[in-house]
Amino acid sequence: MSEATQQNLRRPAPVVILVRPQLAENIGMCARAMANFGLSEMRLVAPRDGWPQKSALKKGAFSAAAGATHILTAAKHYDTLDAALFDLHHVYATTARFREQAKPVQAPAIALPEAASRVASGQKVGLMFGPERTGLESDEVMAASSIITFPVNPDYASLNLAQAVLLTGYEWMRAAQGDVLPFTMPEPSPPAAQGMVGQFFGFLEQELDRVRFFHPEGKKPVMMRNLRNIIHRMAPTEQDIRTLWGMIDLLAKGGKKPGSKKPGSKNPLAEGEAPAVTDA
Amino acid sequence: MSEATQQNLRRPAPVVILVRPQLAENIGMCARAMANFGLSEMRLVAPRDGWPQKSALKKGAFSAAAGATHILTAAKHYDTLDAALFDLHHVYATTARFREQAKPVQAPAIALPEAASRVASGQKVGLMFGPERTGLESDEVMAASSIITFPVNPDYASLNLAQAVLLTGYEWMRAAQGDVLPFTMPEPSPPAAQGMVGQFFGFLEQELDRVRFFHPEGKKPVMMRNLRNIIHRMAPTEQDIRTLWGMIDLLAKGGKKPGSKKPGSKNPLAEGEAPAVTDA
Repeated sequence: MSEATQQNLRRPAPVVILVRPQLAENIGMCARAMANFGLSEMRLVAPRDGWPQKSALKKGAFSAAAGATHILTAAKHYDTLDAALFDLHHVYATTARFREQAKPVQAPAIALPEAASRVASGQKVGLMFGPERTGLESDEVMAASSIITFPVNPDYASLNLAQAVLLTGYEWMRAAQGDVLPFTMPEPSPPAAQGMVGQFFGFLEQELDRVRFFHPEGKKPVMMRNLRNIIHRMAPTEQDIRTLWGMIDLLAKGGKKPGSKKPGSKNPLAEGEAPAVTDA
Repeated sequence: MSEATQQNLRRPAPVVILVRPQLAENIGMCARAMANFGLSEMRLVAPRDGWPQKSALKKGAFSAAAGATHILTAAKHYDTLDAALFDLHHVYATTARFREQAKPVQAPAIALPEAASRVASGQKVGLMFGPERTGLESDEVMAASSIITFPVNPDYASLNLAQAVLLTGYEWMRAAQGDVLPFTMPEPSPPAAQGMVGQFFGFLEQELDRVRFFHPEGKKPVMMRNLRNIIHRMAPTEQDIRTLWGMIDLLAKGGKKPGSKKPGSKNPLAEGEAPAVTDA
């Protein structure tokens, strides 16, 4: 992870408010989803089984959190929604159902970039999620400034609580720092420059001429063009070209002699050598 | 749901391949996540407990699928990965871990739009997910053309199987048909046009003048500008303006007389009447 990513993850982020959550295990899974995407402040409004909970229940939450226990440990408990929202400047209510309320309804990919600008300008932003079975009640949605809903297949619209937190967190992280991936394609070898690829084509053409691959001769231009397109499309690295060169060379020479370590031919692009651009 | 959305959901979509999945319940949750986002073809490669499963196990899958049982019923079982990928043109492997493999590594928001173009051009596309505990093995990743990984917080990078399917499905649906939400803000009243808002300001100014709100007089222009900005920022509907008009009017008149149904004043914008733009 880059220094910049680390710093972004320490910056202010929206607060997640779970309203009347029912199952400790789901609270734990929400904590895990938050941790996946750089959210850390959880508020619990009147959780059905209380909080802190009896040790057996709490254990369920902590085990479902899969390592994100710091979020559960720091979670604050509120008796009322008003108390939980008191210091927030803008609250988004998530809901899967249509509400007869004159509030903007936004997709997460629209709402979270907006939330990120609010956070960047110093506002405290809340993301509010209702209980597992029923979702937020209308009075609870009323306390929010905007509604987030998900672009789901309306025939199967029900997301579970942790999944709603997950999608919201995903768009938060994308909005706050873009699609920064934890890893990218390894680049063991630099991409082959045109000159190197051209040398390879020269060698390939010479060997294919030798075995009379281009038959009838009139088809040669089309066939060479096709071969060149195949090679260019694979965006070869220098190592790829050396591998192909060695392969063609060995096929052309009929194989290594027993005991020999190198193919019989000299490969001008042998590993470690800088390819010289010649007009061979 | 619009006709267009319905049609999009019936169009070809990527196949989800679960490689060596362990728990029936997770297979069910994957089916549900697929249904949420318009994916319907599931392939199972060597599930740990077999498939079709003993009825108790299968019950777990079907109950976790929360209604998306048609996907489980139609799921195909394969003994080998090669067999499961046989008819596919482009396969994406999802993985949370860095692989020393020279393949493009893409965020879901890049990979799924690309997958959507492939599907649109007639290709069969596969999305491959590894077993819960370990993810895909290197040999399995090798069978794919590209790698999808998620822009997670690297300190909490582990997504569970159904969550990985969920995020991938979410980006599929966004790519295939955009952020089409199941509902939007209700519009019970059209937005108020400038003329109606202007009439309201005229009325408001007159009433505020009467109660000497603008004091000292020199501050009036700034105060009126602030009030206008407040009203414009709320993007009022015609109904909003009528409500505000009635409220101001009643406050100014000192309340309804007992028994009266209407405020004492005449509100030129009373509900049902088209607002006349006058220079009152």
